[in-house]
Amino acid sequence: MQNFIFHNPTKIIFGKNTINAIGKEVKKSAAKKVLLLAGSGSIKNNSVYEQITASLKGSGIEWFELWGVKANPTLEHAQRAISIIKEIGIDAIVAAGGGSVIDEAKAVAAGVFVDDIWDAYLGKISISKALPIFTVLTISATGSEMNPTSVLSNEKAQKKLPLASQLLRPLASIIDPSVQSSLPWEQTVNGGIDILAHIFESYFAGSSQEVTIALNESLMKTVINCIDTLAQDEKNYSARANLAWTATLALNGISAAGIIGDWASHRIEHSISAVHTNIAHGTGLGVVFPAWIKYVYKENIELFQRWAKNIWNANSVEQAISLFQQKLKDWKAPTKLSELGIKYEELDFIASNSLETPTLGVVKLLNQNDVLEILKLAY
Amino acid sequence: MQNFIFHNPTKIIFGKNTINAIGKEVKKSAAKKVLLLAGSGSIKNNSVYEQITASLKGSGIEWFELWGVKANPTLEHAQRAISIIKEIGIDAIVAAGGGSVIDEAKAVAAGVFVDDIWDAYLGKISISKALPIFTVLTISATGSEMNPTSVLSNEKAQKKLPLASQLLRPLASIIDPSVQSSLPWEQTVNGGIDILAHIFESYFAGSSQEVTIALNESLMKTVINCIDTLAQDEKNYSARANLAWTATLALNGISAAGIIGDWASHRIEHSISAVHTNIAHGTGLGVVFPAWIKYVYKENIELFQRWAKNIWNANSVEQAISLFQQKLKDWKAPTKLSELGIKYEELDFIASNSLETPTLGVVKLLNQNDVLEILKLAY
Repeated sequence: MQNFIFHNPTKIIFGKNTINAIGKEVKKSAAKKVLLLAGSGSIKNNSVYEQITASLKGSGIEWFELWGVKANPTLEHAQRAISIIKEIGIDAIVAAGGGSVIDEAKAVAAGVFVDDIWDAYLGKISISKALPIFTVLTISATGSEMNPTSVLSNEKAQKKLPLASQLLRPLASIIDPSVQSSLPWEQTVNGGIDILAHIFESYFAGSSQEVTIALNESLMKTVINCIDTLAQDEKNYSARANLAWTATLALNGISAAGIIGDWASHRIEHSISAVHTNIAHGTGLGVVFPAWIKYVYKENIELFQRWAKNIWNANSVEQAISLFQQKLKDWKAPTKLSELGIKYEELDFIASNSLETPTLGVVKLLNQNDVLEILKLAY
Repeated sequence: MQNFIFHNPTKIIFGKNTINAIGKEVKKSAAKKVLLLAGSGSIKNNSVYEQITASLKGSGIEWFELWGVKANPTLEHAQRAISIIKEIGIDAIVAAGGGSVIDEAKAVAAGVFVDDIWDAYLGKISISKALPIFTVLTISATGSEMNPTSVLSNEKAQKKLPLASQLLRPLASIIDPSVQSSLPWEQTVNGGIDILAHIFESYFAGSSQEVTIALNESLMKTVINCIDTLAQDEKNYSARANLAWTATLALNGISAAGIIGDWASHRIEHSISAVHTNIAHGTGLGVVFPAWIKYVYKENIELFQRWAKNIWNANSVEQAISLFQQKLKDWKAPTKLSELGIKYEELDFIASNSLETPTLGVVKLLNQNDVLEILKLAY
């Protein structure tokens, strides 16, 4: 078990009819005027917008609305938000949406204090200040509501990069699982795959961290059970709630305690959706992960066999991969890169784009050729 | 799944050779002089004292030492600490020890700002201020290093009561599992039983909180595996580390997310060790819990059967209770009240002392007669 620091001060307010707490939480931070950041407008259809604005109003908080955050949030849109804040003055950000909106909110929160926030994603500068961030989560997937990480796409440069800082942790996040009942099925599934992928990144790199490994198995089984339940009954509150809390736990430090995660599959997927911005992160991960497992499992064979047995009741890792892919098909998720409109000729470029550093991963150190082989397996 | 708030800002620094971080952590809080609170002196034998004082010195922090915190920490000793602080002036408390030392540190931290801290345990006053608390944990059991609760004994009144407040959460806690290798076997086992008991309190009150229930099963299995491993090899670092982190997770909010816990068994045990202060909390819980399970399991039969199957691979709850008690015997822990020097005639008094409120518990609401029946089963 490697040494670790766990320090996650984000306050989570979880459950039915909790969104009305947002005004009070913002008020505690002494903010008087906030940027309300949102996506394409779905929060106007599920009453989330109404609940947030009523609560802000009730607490005497002013707000300025900025809409249009994309599924893969962009530097360009973040820069627009930063300009607005610099112009009109804002004390805090309320991100109302899924991980995309929250990730962009983090870029904006830090971006108002530096010349070019992309430099922070490139590792050229480090941030030392950020506006307070509050979130109202509308889709459980990325875990961004309780972690220090933001992933942003630079469309011009065709790059999608992460940035992590303690300063980017939301002060408070509200998770009302009931508002997720109206999500399109595809988004629920993509969320589920993203959650599984976050657990995989730590789990497969485990060795002696028995408690973290065992917890991760519980989390994986819960995700699979919840998505199976929701496939039959999309409005099942218990399944929505369990899936939502699992999503938060999957990337708030608990699933990684004592383990240095792999994260190669995420980098490969980012390289795919940086170019094909229409591909949802979860969809990409569902295609990449089985191929990655196939390519690397012999490096940590005991743990992959444990996964096969405990999660899939399978006798071999190969059989477990098949069962995993069959599950994805049952959930109507793609399992091949070719299904996503990616041309075989692009694989070389995607592979080279995955490697910012000469090698990638922990379970197996991957070079560009390894990544290409994984992409071919996934095609 | 009930609504819940999860907000646990305590920073955990976990792993080998981490105690030297204490000075730096204290310094960040701007404290210049601390009370170093400790038990009977074991920290002088395992180098913990040396590491702490070297680190404080290195960071330019002055300290005043107060020793002698008891296994069941007392109001009387806490009052002595409070008097000292009021006299010499102290900015923060460093608790070096197990849950007893940390629990007393919490009483002291709040106690310096009120007339009589026992009034807070009695619910007569609420606290509104506390000194910053830092901990260096030397035995994993109570979870006090990452939670807001303190349990204190008033020896004169023969009462042992809890107090919880967000103000009592340690700012930072250091957990170096390697220092626990020198613990007497009995203390390791009592710690393990205490951890299991904390998980039970939430787990058995569960229903639709699938993720929390599944996580708790992982935690229980880890505790049992780790104690079994340590029975063969007391210095096994991996088992010490996994047990230590499980102890923290068992009572930091994770094991209770979405569940209103039962806590009757804890109250009954507190009533026992309030009178018999020589009985360790874990020992008392190991005796009370099987009896409580036997008495209440039909109230939530599905979950108790799930426990029997998933934790003990047993076909019935009765069989699981036997296996649990056999495990306690294997660990050389008592399983009967009669083994603890308690007289049968005392059971009435212990039962009446358990009920501060007319009823107790969540799985089954217990009255005084129910508690007496449980005590008889445990005798």
